[in-house]
Amino acid sequence: MPVTAQSNVRAVGDVRAAIEALQGRFGERLSMAQAVRAQHGNTTTWHPNQPPDAVVFAETTEEVADIVRVCAGHDVPVIAFGTGTSLEGQVNAPFGGICVDMSRMNRVLQVNAEDLDCTVQAGVTRKQLNTELRASGLFFPIDPGADASIGGMTATRASGTNAVRYGTMKDAVLSLTAVMADGTIIRTARRAKKSSAGYDLTRLLVGSEGTLGIATEITLRLHGIPEAIAGGVCPFTTLEGACNAVIATIQSGIPVARIELLDEVQVRASNAYSRLSLAETPTLFVEFHGSEAGVAEQSQRFGEIAAEFGGGPFEWTQNAEERTALWQARHDAYWACRGLRPGLETFATDVCVPISRLAECILETKADIERLGMLAPIVGHVGDGNFHTSVLVDMSDPADIARVEEFMTRLVERAIAMDGTCTGEHGVGQGKMKYLDAELGAAVEVMRAIKRALDPKNIMNPGKIVRI
Amino acid sequence: MPVTAQSNVRAVGDVRAAIEALQGRFGERLSMAQAVRAQHGNTTTWHPNQPPDAVVFAETTEEVADIVRVCAGHDVPVIAFGTGTSLEGQVNAPFGGICVDMSRMNRVLQVNAEDLDCTVQAGVTRKQLNTELRASGLFFPIDPGADASIGGMTATRASGTNAVRYGTMKDAVLSLTAVMADGTIIRTARRAKKSSAGYDLTRLLVGSEGTLGIATEITLRLHGIPEAIAGGVCPFTTLEGACNAVIATIQSGIPVARIELLDEVQVRASNAYSRLSLAETPTLFVEFHGSEAGVAEQSQRFGEIAAEFGGGPFEWTQNAEERTALWQARHDAYWACRGLRPGLETFATDVCVPISRLAECILETKADIERLGMLAPIVGHVGDGNFHTSVLVDMSDPADIARVEEFMTRLVERAIAMDGTCTGEHGVGQGKMKYLDAELGAAVEVMRAIKRALDPKNIMNPGKIVRI
Repeated sequence: MPVTAQSNVRAVGDVRAAIEALQGRFGERLSMAQAVRAQHGNTTTWHPNQPPDAVVFAETTEEVADIVRVCAGHDVPVIAFGTGTSLEGQVNAPFGGICVDMSRMNRVLQVNAEDLDCTVQAGVTRKQLNTELRASGLFFPIDPGADASIGGMTATRASGTNAVRYGTMKDAVLSLTAVMADGTIIRTARRAKKSSAGYDLTRLLVGSEGTLGIATEITLRLHGIPEAIAGGVCPFTTLEGACNAVIATIQSGIPVARIELLDEVQVRASNAYSRLSLAETPTLFVEFHGSEAGVAEQSQRFGEIAAEFGGGPFEWTQNAEERTALWQARHDAYWACRGLRPGLETFATDVCVPISRLAECILETKADIERLGMLAPIVGHVGDGNFHTSVLVDMSDPADIARVEEFMTRLVERAIAMDGTCTGEHGVGQGKMKYLDAELGAAVEVMRAIKRALDPKNIMNPGKIVRI
Repeated sequence: MPVTAQSNVRAVGDVRAAIEALQGRFGERLSMAQAVRAQHGNTTTWHPNQPPDAVVFAETTEEVADIVRVCAGHDVPVIAFGTGTSLEGQVNAPFGGICVDMSRMNRVLQVNAEDLDCTVQAGVTRKQLNTELRASGLFFPIDPGADASIGGMTATRASGTNAVRYGTMKDAVLSLTAVMADGTIIRTARRAKKSSAGYDLTRLLVGSEGTLGIATEITLRLHGIPEAIAGGVCPFTTLEGACNAVIATIQSGIPVARIELLDEVQVRASNAYSRLSLAETPTLFVEFHGSEAGVAEQSQRFGEIAAEFGGGPFEWTQNAEERTALWQARHDAYWACRGLRPGLETFATDVCVPISRLAECILETKADIERLGMLAPIVGHVGDGNFHTSVLVDMSDPADIARVEEFMTRLVERAIAMDGTCTGEHGVGQGKMKYLDAELGAAVEVMRAIKRALDPKNIMNPGKIVRI
């Protein structure tokens, strides 16, 4: 599938001069090796590789600022890289330039247990953070499938299975330190839980995908590990029943912590990949957090709702090992899909609609998949109205590519017509730029004005989100 | 107390020409009457009146866009007005110009009960909204003391007593329609519960106080009215004990819906104003939302924590009338303070600190009040680390004014030194501009760049938040 043509026109700066300056400053921490460049010009999807000219491994905020200043001085693009697990070409370098690898900025700087917050360097991954937090009794809930870096998750406004209860990165980030396009280092807010002190730069930078600034240190809200966690699997006779059970659960106000849909194709894929033995029928994975009495009450109420919609039996457990296996399987859904037919490429869609339209949107999408004869499991953070199809594509077959393109366009148009969005959590990157006008109209011009104001040379991850 | 000198230099446009154009368009809905102008150039505090040149009563988004276009064409300031209950001079017109009164835009446009959201015109007030929602079983939780308009609350990123559980306006606003500085109408997002589709314009406009655009229609998240509500009053022997009980409650993870501190001076004021008969000692007002069993469990756990810190007896009730009287008294705290010594002006401070520093910050502030011999009750949304002192000032006494200024500066410096903010919920307006550099440093320059990019003529509520 061809990448959308990039209409960004920018003066290509003197990348050779920038590299020379950076070599003097960073020595062996700058790499121009082909393999290193290729690894940094790639995302976990069908977008073709677009390597940067060099990769610098930064260790401090000040070093990131130095790199940006050099790039600004030579009009050279600068692209931050966390773990390379974004899905829309966010770290590709369509105009070359310097990639700043953040993986060595991997220290948890401060845990303020009494304030339920912590400050980390951008290269810390979500699993690393939760491991380091374990002794504090606190946890960080945002969990995209991959073990992404906190910086990358901040950049794409990531979420995951816990978002229905704990929100997304927009809610999790209390403040951040960022390097702006001229090398200025800013801190967007202080550590108070709320503030009305001027424009919300924190949330302007969350989701800006490195196009306005590079987040180097992030202060995150944490949550107490719940006293009790209960969860389990609930099979349904029909996809419609599963969707309607989700809608009823959310509308009834049960504070569900996770409620994930897997259609029968995804269950088959996950059974094979994660060695589960679930009935191959539309299924919800659910989890409740609270007191012992609370999770029992919630589980029972959910079971009753599920039964009304042809679901059940809902078997729940507080056994930690069983739960962990289940959620690992959920997080591995993408890899399970790829295992369905090795050799094919996978394209993950990411629409999100108001919950009242969820069943309609999923059923129409399922009908489209069947009509087009595609292999495309459905999986979703359905409590938020967000679901993914993992479309398997034969990149050597133009007819298959055309078919998938038709499907994707129809899916996004369907979601937008339902007052939804083309991306619930993966971000825009290169892949979703073409849909922004249809979704947001004149607001896109305001985004362009902000981009021009904060990055007048268009050096910060150019060719992503908006064309200027 | 003198308003901070305004260093904003702007070409004063042709306000006479703008008014003539608007008179042609709006007829009697444009007023230049002295009383109307004065009423619109005033906030609920000590800031002196700065009236606009004319007031236009808008009825639709398109009319607001027309007004802004006329003002842009003549380089004339344009200031949106909701209920005039802001506290930092947000609606004052230091450079004159056109005030857009939003009070006639008071329709609830859509209630999507199944999606837990609604869309309202900006002039709808929070009490009106909750009255109209009653039949739906839903409620809108954000509750500043005044019956403010949703547009004004959006503009100042307001919060209130429920924020500890339900968040602030940044969390409550899902999307909004805004008129930008050139008259363009944008919709910042669709109605999906989450989105990663580009820059977060919703949250950039929330809290921007009409300096970047005017919100005309706002889509809000709603919540189900809890099955059970329990609440009550808990007296403490010492202020320190009350503060530490709050900290322990938050840290223990009890999902308290409201937890408000009143010091003994505020209790005395509220007893007099609201005809209560509370013991005149530091006191917490608390409330729990949940199931019958849940609120009973939470109330009991809170009572145990309070007892550890010298609090109690904690008497709680599910009686709706008693609770309503209590919270009305809390919302009337500002007026109760004014009643303590009629004729004096009241200045409400608004710092917010990380919860671990709350006791320290309040105790040092209380010591300062006593040292300076001021009358200044303390009241606060302490679960968020946010508290107010309502300082009574004799505006005819320069020594009193100087003393209050010293107190305020010390309070803000204290909060910032504790990694807190000069404003938790009242906004910057004119009154807090002088503190932004100390609080946010280089980030203020980024705010200026955004302001210049989105309002190059500096016509949108000029002289607020940042000087450009």
